[in-house]
Amino acid sequence: MAKQPSLTSQSDDFSAWYNELVYRADLVDLGPVRGTMVIRPYGYALWENIQRELDAMFKATGHENLYFPMLIPMSYFQREAQHVEGFSPELAVVTHAGGVELEEPLAIRPTSETVVGELYAKWVQSYRDLPLLYNQWCNVVRWEMRTRPFLRTTEFLWQEGHTAHASEEEARFEVRQMLDVYATFAEEFAAVPVIRGEKTEGERFAGAVQTLTIEAMMRDGKALQSGTSHYLGQNFAKAFDIKFNDVDNEQAFAHTTSWGLSTRMIGAIIMAHGDDAGLVLPPKLAPTQVVVVPMGRGNDEAGRARVAAEVERIAGALRGAGVRVRVDARDANPGAKFYEWEQKGVPLRVEIGPKDLDAGTALVKDRLAADKTAVPLDGLVAYLVEALPAFHDRLFERARAFREERTVEAHTFEELVAGVERGFVIATHCGDPESERAIQEATKATVRCIPLEGISAEGTTCVHTGRPSGYANKVVFGRAY
Amino acid sequence: MAKQPSLTSQSDDFSAWYNELVYRADLVDLGPVRGTMVIRPYGYALWENIQRELDAMFKATGHENLYFPMLIPMSYFQREAQHVEGFSPELAVVTHAGGVELEEPLAIRPTSETVVGELYAKWVQSYRDLPLLYNQWCNVVRWEMRTRPFLRTTEFLWQEGHTAHASEEEARFEVRQMLDVYATFAEEFAAVPVIRGEKTEGERFAGAVQTLTIEAMMRDGKALQSGTSHYLGQNFAKAFDIKFNDVDNEQAFAHTTSWGLSTRMIGAIIMAHGDDAGLVLPPKLAPTQVVVVPMGRGNDEAGRARVAAEVERIAGALRGAGVRVRVDARDANPGAKFYEWEQKGVPLRVEIGPKDLDAGTALVKDRLAADKTAVPLDGLVAYLVEALPAFHDRLFERARAFREERTVEAHTFEELVAGVERGFVIATHCGDPESERAIQEATKATVRCIPLEGISAEGTTCVHTGRPSGYANKVVFGRAY
Repeated sequence: MAKQPSLTSQSDDFSAWYNELVYRADLVDLGPVRGTMVIRPYGYALWENIQRELDAMFKATGHENLYFPMLIPMSYFQREAQHVEGFSPELAVVTHAGGVELEEPLAIRPTSETVVGELYAKWVQSYRDLPLLYNQWCNVVRWEMRTRPFLRTTEFLWQEGHTAHASEEEARFEVRQMLDVYATFAEEFAAVPVIRGEKTEGERFAGAVQTLTIEAMMRDGKALQSGTSHYLGQNFAKAFDIKFNDVDNEQAFAHTTSWGLSTRMIGAIIMAHGDDAGLVLPPKLAPTQVVVVPMGRGNDEAGRARVAAEVERIAGALRGAGVRVRVDARDANPGAKFYEWEQKGVPLRVEIGPKDLDAGTALVKDRLAADKTAVPLDGLVAYLVEALPAFHDRLFERARAFREERTVEAHTFEELVAGVERGFVIATHCGDPESERAIQEATKATVRCIPLEGISAEGTTCVHTGRPSGYANKVVFGRAY
Repeated sequence: MAKQPSLTSQSDDFSAWYNELVYRADLVDLGPVRGTMVIRPYGYALWENIQRELDAMFKATGHENLYFPMLIPMSYFQREAQHVEGFSPELAVVTHAGGVELEEPLAIRPTSETVVGELYAKWVQSYRDLPLLYNQWCNVVRWEMRTRPFLRTTEFLWQEGHTAHASEEEARFEVRQMLDVYATFAEEFAAVPVIRGEKTEGERFAGAVQTLTIEAMMRDGKALQSGTSHYLGQNFAKAFDIKFNDVDNEQAFAHTTSWGLSTRMIGAIIMAHGDDAGLVLPPKLAPTQVVVVPMGRGNDEAGRARVAAEVERIAGALRGAGVRVRVDARDANPGAKFYEWEQKGVPLRVEIGPKDLDAGTALVKDRLAADKTAVPLDGLVAYLVEALPAFHDRLFERARAFREERTVEAHTFEELVAGVERGFVIATHCGDPESERAIQEATKATVRCIPLEGISAEGTTCVHTGRPSGYANKVVFGRAY
């Protein structure tokens, strides 16, 4: 635990702060291939907690998991015109295997709609076979030019849901339902407030009729798209021949959806909550919720033994109460330990030394608070158990207040230009893709989404072109990761 | 639920039985690329249960999960001579990505020792950094010539543990510990009895000093290697420069291990327990442990409603008791439902109709029994909860007895030749690789392992060459998958 130079502050260079922190907090390491990352145990434990909670929500909404092969014949991508255009430039291609050149090159999945389409066509014959409500947890590869750990990596981990339905109505219900699952997860587990909205045409998933998104604000005011849910219409059903006999015995194409959330969510958690001391992890997902540091060194062996016994009692009681607790009894400077666990974002720290035992108290340090609180030992476990959900609420509220403070409504283009320097801008837009591009060139900001529950644009005119609104609601502009 | 032609019987053609069953029981479907499989929800649920139990055992023995990138520079494989020889012929190679040819081709991991070695070299500096006790759940690709669902597929899912230790003793303890974890899992969760043993030199993992294995007998008498644990010595540490300052501040190379169990375990479960009616699933891993079929059709609507209410009460009580229960209320012939759930290997089936309600009983059909048992409704839940572990025990005992009956000790080569036709043969072997090859050519059988707890070979001579035993114990011969 050698002392490190201090972390770059967010205000000095947010990007440097992020790039330093992901390594220092033992979340990732660089992979040997450009743009790949090793997710280290501390980062992976965060992902496991995300997986566990999301997976339970998927199952509670009637979905089952399965697994599709990773290698997809290149020709499959040709079948859906927009899809091939969107994904071809990013494919990693296997041309040789088993020592010989393959007859047809194989792509590593960048997403699985094509192979899913091929199989769903086989599994769906009658309306009785519908809906198919499936999800897979897997790795995907997209050859990106500029990469950053968690935010954009050559290979990443995600889940991709793929469903097929007999009617458009049912499919659209599914798309919205899964967006709501993502939003609920982001807010109630990651403590990240999100805006639910629809993407404009230019930002849609390649091959989708509609893309819904959850957008979160990072602590530099920029937006991070954190999960998307797509209504694919009958595009993939037609491309892959997913058709069925409906209740009237007529042939019909299925309506399909897909929805995904990835290890990018870890980036959202880092950047929505972190501060100059490091990570601040939401308790429901934190690998360690409470760290207990036994104090007292030197030659007071009896004191140390008393402390160790009390620490074990507390840790045991916390485990029994379902708290993820870690005892840090390493032979090291307490200051270095505090520094490390603060950097790793552990919500609550407990310090107990011989003097605390004599006083019948322990010191509790809250990652969001400046001071320590002396808490009576006999009420300590109950105090900590209650402090965790309260910590979640405060963390969420802090992020929400931050977003509110950095969100402005713009009525002129100048207001938009000024607003996106700090955060989100709510404004009317005409919906013209040309205007979107021009705004992006001028401000680096894009339409993040048209909020599902937003401010009506009725009677208002575009902040850029002065034309009538292209959407029912005012849109959210922001610079994005 | 159209009637299917009956399943080929095991005695007619065991291989055809397997190949038909994996599709009929909705475990898998063919992937679009040769040798790949889609793991369907019923098969994947089995894998999820395997994962959950094994993962808990890994964590209970101090391991953490992480994730290494899938793409590995080809040059990494060159660094360990035996490893490259073993895996090069099976590699799938990415030569193009992002629309351009790569400077260095990348292999899709067939196993991750090389990339793990590269990172461990970075993470290990001092003896204080050791041991590293990590595992990952992931997909791997090995380009195999002959493939079969679960047993040998181009892509498969597995876990691979990778640990690094300061001493040989500690590493060898780890290797044995993880073998024991696999054996305990196989026997106590999959109800598959296994022989724990060591592989002969020719059957070792490419690059290992020692390979331990668990070997199970399938119902055709053949062996299936179901999990392996390798002591890698300092081979990979030297190839990848994993060295550290030991307690005396001397530089030393780490001792590393790796251990893996894959979706092949699903093949073991199918072939160790299945019968002519289909799968027989071990209760602790079965996606559905109890299926409840409401009986009574036609126009007795009141009767059906009474039955539905009782079925829901029972299912709710079973769920409350932690039982994975499924109610099959589909509008279909009960006979067809029974056939389907038997084929899918559900341990216990409950039938309840209006007449049963009047009699205050339900019929319980056990997948291993020929007859149905009438069980009083008020004791039904308790009966079922107790029947599940009893089912596990009977299933394990049946498999054990089957293996015993098909295992013989051979003192002559003729006895070996006859014995491997039916199952395992225990005999003395000299350890000469030439003799092993000759035996394989003559009998199609190989040395499955040298049992860790076996029959002493002291003073005995090789069943093939007449030379002294090459090992402390007699070895197990068998034909293998």
